[in-house]
Amino acid sequence: MATIKDVAGAAGVSVATVSRVLNDNGYVHEETRTRVMAAMEKLNYYPNEVARSLYKRESRLIGLLLPDITNPFFPQLARGAEDELNREGYRLIFGNSDEELNKELEYLQTFKQNHVAGIIAATNYPHLEEYSGIDQPVVFLDRTPEGAPSVSSDGHTGGKLAAEAIVHRSKHITLLKGPAHLPTAQDRFHGALEVLQQADVDFQIIETASFSFKDAQALAKELFAIYPETDGIIASNDIQAAAVLHEALRRGKKVPEDIQIIGYDDIPQSELLFPPLSTIKQPAYDMGKEAAKLLLSIIKKQPLAETAIQMPVMYIRRNTTRKEEKDA
Amino acid sequence: MATIKDVAGAAGVSVATVSRVLNDNGYVHEETRTRVMAAMEKLNYYPNEVARSLYKRESRLIGLLLPDITNPFFPQLARGAEDELNREGYRLIFGNSDEELNKELEYLQTFKQNHVAGIIAATNYPHLEEYSGIDQPVVFLDRTPEGAPSVSSDGHTGGKLAAEAIVHRSKHITLLKGPAHLPTAQDRFHGALEVLQQADVDFQIIETASFSFKDAQALAKELFAIYPETDGIIASNDIQAAAVLHEALRRGKKVPEDIQIIGYDDIPQSELLFPPLSTIKQPAYDMGKEAAKLLLSIIKKQPLAETAIQMPVMYIRRNTTRKEEKDA
Repeated sequence: MATIKDVAGAAGVSVATVSRVLNDNGYVHEETRTRVMAAMEKLNYYPNEVARSLYKRESRLIGLLLPDITNPFFPQLARGAEDELNREGYRLIFGNSDEELNKELEYLQTFKQNHVAGIIAATNYPHLEEYSGIDQPVVFLDRTPEGAPSVSSDGHTGGKLAAEAIVHRSKHITLLKGPAHLPTAQDRFHGALEVLQQADVDFQIIETASFSFKDAQALAKELFAIYPETDGIIASNDIQAAAVLHEALRRGKKVPEDIQIIGYDDIPQSELLFPPLSTIKQPAYDMGKEAAKLLLSIIKKQPLAETAIQMPVMYIRRNTTRKEEKDA
Repeated sequence: MATIKDVAGAAGVSVATVSRVLNDNGYVHEETRTRVMAAMEKLNYYPNEVARSLYKRESRLIGLLLPDITNPFFPQLARGAEDELNREGYRLIFGNSDEELNKELEYLQTFKQNHVAGIIAATNYPHLEEYSGIDQPVVFLDRTPEGAPSVSSDGHTGGKLAAEAIVHRSKHITLLKGPAHLPTAQDRFHGALEVLQQADVDFQIIETASFSFKDAQALAKELFAIYPETDGIIASNDIQAAAVLHEALRRGKKVPEDIQIIGYDDIPQSELLFPPLSTIKQPAYDMGKEAAKLLLSIIKKQPLAETAIQMPVMYIRRNTTRKEEKDA
């Protein structure tokens, strides 16, 4: 493997000059820089990132923490962040906390120990003391701890749109309330609740402990056992909605004639369900992209127009909700 | 933040002794080691992984390369690998190549530059010259370049099972042939082809350029336009099968009465499709786990019983294929 000395020899400069080029500090003539870069390329010389990050206490790595990689919403976020970071020459260290506090703490430690340049955290525990002890910039994604840079979408409006989509044609509505410790889940819940309270409908609330697929399957069975008269369900995400939809069909109910179901997120699979799922679209890919942009701006100490970015949501009517009369 | 000197002071030993404990080299009395560990814990001292990896040329990071994080099959693989690695004190650097050669090369370079302890590659380009130039151990996952350590599942049998599931009750079968550069796709294709050639059915083959969701949607529309008489479809993965299923229903066909459809992979969402998708189950989570185990064995220089591990597959009959007479 080529060394920095080989590069210096090939370029006809000193090791110190190569080092200045590598670290982008001190004056180097443009023509010299080009010659050094050409020598590095020719010799297939990879600067030692570890040594460089030790020296400069920085790296081109970004740590991304996701709560559940098996929920397709989060890979979409990751893809958005990844594309933006790659474009700027950064790479992701990725951690999946599996909604467990311990794993989250371990990944944060891994990120710190490997001197990432910054962290994007779609954490279930945004108020952890550990986040304030991190030297690197942190941007929260899909989570909004007060005072911290964050990218999220407008959950309160999303919840209202979800409830409005079914409230006029369902009379016994079940509102699924997502995990209590997640402000995003609570935002959409309160938005929906506001609409239901003002409408002339019976409704009941079931609280769910997680957004996970496994819990959603159990929940779906329980829901129909406890509230057989339910004719409208507002799910707290698409995974839940898919599980509920499946269970409704299994019980011989017609969707949307007997029961309307609306999800939340608009993961790619929702369109492929049968009937295709009506849902509230969060712009997941763009949210990931915005989080990466915000983080890079902070890393580069650029002036920031906004540090708590909230993106718009949208009602996507497919076939699990009925058309409003006014739409007809 | 505590330093190595603080730890030495608190434990009543020299800095050199703490360093020996940290690097696990040279003789340290067991009682002394315990005292040092306790002091580190008490002072919340994190050894500098970057410095350590520079010195020892190793780290506790593993690089994982996936071709498409938005295909739910791959997060399952990742979860299996992750759980096993976490249990052994390793963490993942994750890269999503998006089926692009350039991104794959860039991630490999990132992995090398950050001195990962090893790489798990679910690569689309297993024959890349770059893989032979890597100093760290590499285990291929879901891919099987000859002579290299790998974990895959038995695709040939999987393809045969898929064809056998529909061949007796469909007369005009469409066999979707996955990407030509992926041996796993070709294995399942050839398995299915073998069965179809021996059976008394018409069949046609459509080759697909990728496993991605976007391509699958276009493919589904094309398939029914070109071969309207198709009454049986063997998809090369579940994403394709879901797209095909959706398009069939949209065209008013009854599944499985008018047309049988079988997928491949058994991603979690397949069970939630309507009708629930019949498919060939690959044990994705366990494959990830086995790949991590194999990689760790190689890193630890343990004797290996097997370096090309092939795991069994299974036919899961749900509602998009019909029961065989012999089953009834």
